[in-house]
Amino acid sequence: MSKVIQFDRTGSAEVLKVVERELPLPKAGEVLVKIHISALNRFEIMYRQGEYAYPPQFPSTIGAEAVGTIEKLGEGVTDFSVGDRVSILYTANMIANGTHAEHTIVPVDVIVPAPDTDDTTAASLWTSYVTAYAAFVEKKPIQPKQTAVITAASSSSGLAGIQVVKALGGVAIATTRTSKKKQALLDLGADYVIATEEEDLTTRILELTHGKGADIVYDPIAGEMLPKLLAATAKGGTVYEYGTLDGGSIMTPLPVSLPLLFDKWLTGIYVFDIALDRDRWTLADKWIRDALSRGAIKPIVDRTFKLNEIVEAQRYMEAGNQIGKILVRP
Amino acid sequence: MSKVIQFDRTGSAEVLKVVERELPLPKAGEVLVKIHISALNRFEIMYRQGEYAYPPQFPSTIGAEAVGTIEKLGEGVTDFSVGDRVSILYTANMIANGTHAEHTIVPVDVIVPAPDTDDTTAASLWTSYVTAYAAFVEKKPIQPKQTAVITAASSSSGLAGIQVVKALGGVAIATTRTSKKKQALLDLGADYVIATEEEDLTTRILELTHGKGADIVYDPIAGEMLPKLLAATAKGGTVYEYGTLDGGSIMTPLPVSLPLLFDKWLTGIYVFDIALDRDRWTLADKWIRDALSRGAIKPIVDRTFKLNEIVEAQRYMEAGNQIGKILVRP
Repeated sequence: MSKVIQFDRTGSAEVLKVVERELPLPKAGEVLVKIHISALNRFEIMYRQGEYAYPPQFPSTIGAEAVGTIEKLGEGVTDFSVGDRVSILYTANMIANGTHAEHTIVPVDVIVPAPDTDDTTAASLWTSYVTAYAAFVEKKPIQPKQTAVITAASSSSGLAGIQVVKALGGVAIATTRTSKKKQALLDLGADYVIATEEEDLTTRILELTHGKGADIVYDPIAGEMLPKLLAATAKGGTVYEYGTLDGGSIMTPLPVSLPLLFDKWLTGIYVFDIALDRDRWTLADKWIRDALSRGAIKPIVDRTFKLNEIVEAQRYMEAGNQIGKILVRP
Repeated sequence: MSKVIQFDRTGSAEVLKVVERELPLPKAGEVLVKIHISALNRFEIMYRQGEYAYPPQFPSTIGAEAVGTIEKLGEGVTDFSVGDRVSILYTANMIANGTHAEHTIVPVDVIVPAPDTDDTTAASLWTSYVTAYAAFVEKKPIQPKQTAVITAASSSSGLAGIQVVKALGGVAIATTRTSKKKQALLDLGADYVIATEEEDLTTRILELTHGKGADIVYDPIAGEMLPKLLAATAKGGTVYEYGTLDGGSIMTPLPVSLPLLFDKWLTGIYVFDIALDRDRWTLADKWIRDALSRGAIKPIVDRTFKLNEIVEAQRYMEAGNQIGKILVRP
């Protein structure tokens, strides 16, 4: 038997329960992984609420990113062996194969060898840094002295953004709701911090960029903040959206009018598009491992919960007081 | 005295009147131009309705693009002489200096020497081809065999798009509401035509691109069509929006949700951003004049109205039965 987090209706964090189930068996092309540590990601909260890109089918498991050890190989799996320590980049199917569990089953195309670090670092690495890589390295690499605005900067992906921008010589303007986390963000590498509930976001960005606007905006909030960010984006600049924290459903239209887009570029990052594309992944994987090994990036972990504290863990993420990754250990 | 089209309230085309006014005098940096032919553009209709990016102040003139001859120079103008035949790219101020008039006043930074063609061609060139240039040449040039979707293809900017795509070896998929204009669009260079009221737009584009989606989408409609276009855009592809024909006000938010943007790029074209940027303009101007002189592009004129037929001319544009540019001759 194996413990797994399940829920049988959408709702607040309390719908999540620890359930015992038979150890599932991997099918062809899949592996059974014993989870060491699993990472929380924001989209799980939307998924639990029925607001994500695909709806849960009940009973549903949850969780998408983890590090663990392969315990069984499905038919035809040759690239990995039993006993390999691997990172799960994405459970192709959170419905049945969530990572908040003692064991899960995943197809081999969503696992990679775990980096040679402790489990905490390995479990905190991929989603956050692949997202930051997509915005600052992959398509239009940030140039030295260019300015990046990083919203929700104390999230794990936000902190990853600050580190990647600084690694490439850019200027990092972090945003956070109040000045409470200001000093912590400066200590973690931000060049400037804007408290969005206390200062006018557009005005401050324009001031800090001498009227030009930001070259790159990296934002998981969207909603009412997006027009303000576009208004503070330089001509030719790019806004990368990777979430809709402010918007309820991920399907809610973004409030973008045509004049806001004149000579500005808006695009969305779906980290798993990269994870599932071999060519893109190879480059992302190499960049991230290299940056990690030379100390240019370093995941920040806020807190690790036990698996049976999943309700508290998700509530803690919803409260938004963390600085860095939230983990769950079976 | 000089005739000019004016209106003193927002509303339907009937608000437009021919008015006689004193010949205005150019201020420093401005020139007085005697208009030979003026071109209609869609945004004038929004402007007349009070739905454009800036509101009219009454009484307001109208019209933004024309060809004519300089009759008077304001103080400090040295790059042009009286008698020069010039294209007006944009009246910086439609409120006072519209081009639907016998004369208008414009700052020198929005005029260029008229191309060595008849007035009809010269007046039909800039807005349409600079828009197409912005989408297909300037930032991410279309590559041979790449696929472009060109919506509202029988408009002057749509036809310019088809010509520019074909000049660069791309595949042009034109869209139009019904099959009425289908043959005309094929005759004018489109490789395929989709009648959006008769066929499923997303399905047809995916069929024509073998499931990949379009590399570039060039769209002045937005509204409910935009999500369908994004769904039929290739990963890594770009959607250029240059109007909101379907949306009422230009400030209406575009119905774009985050998943629609994953790995796709959305940007807006404001043709006058290019006209007013010397570096960008120099390249655009050269590309367009070269393409015109080697016969790679050729403006299509639908119909020329007299100045006192401005109401009919705007109604004709609103009815949407034209194929090509609509002009007004004082």
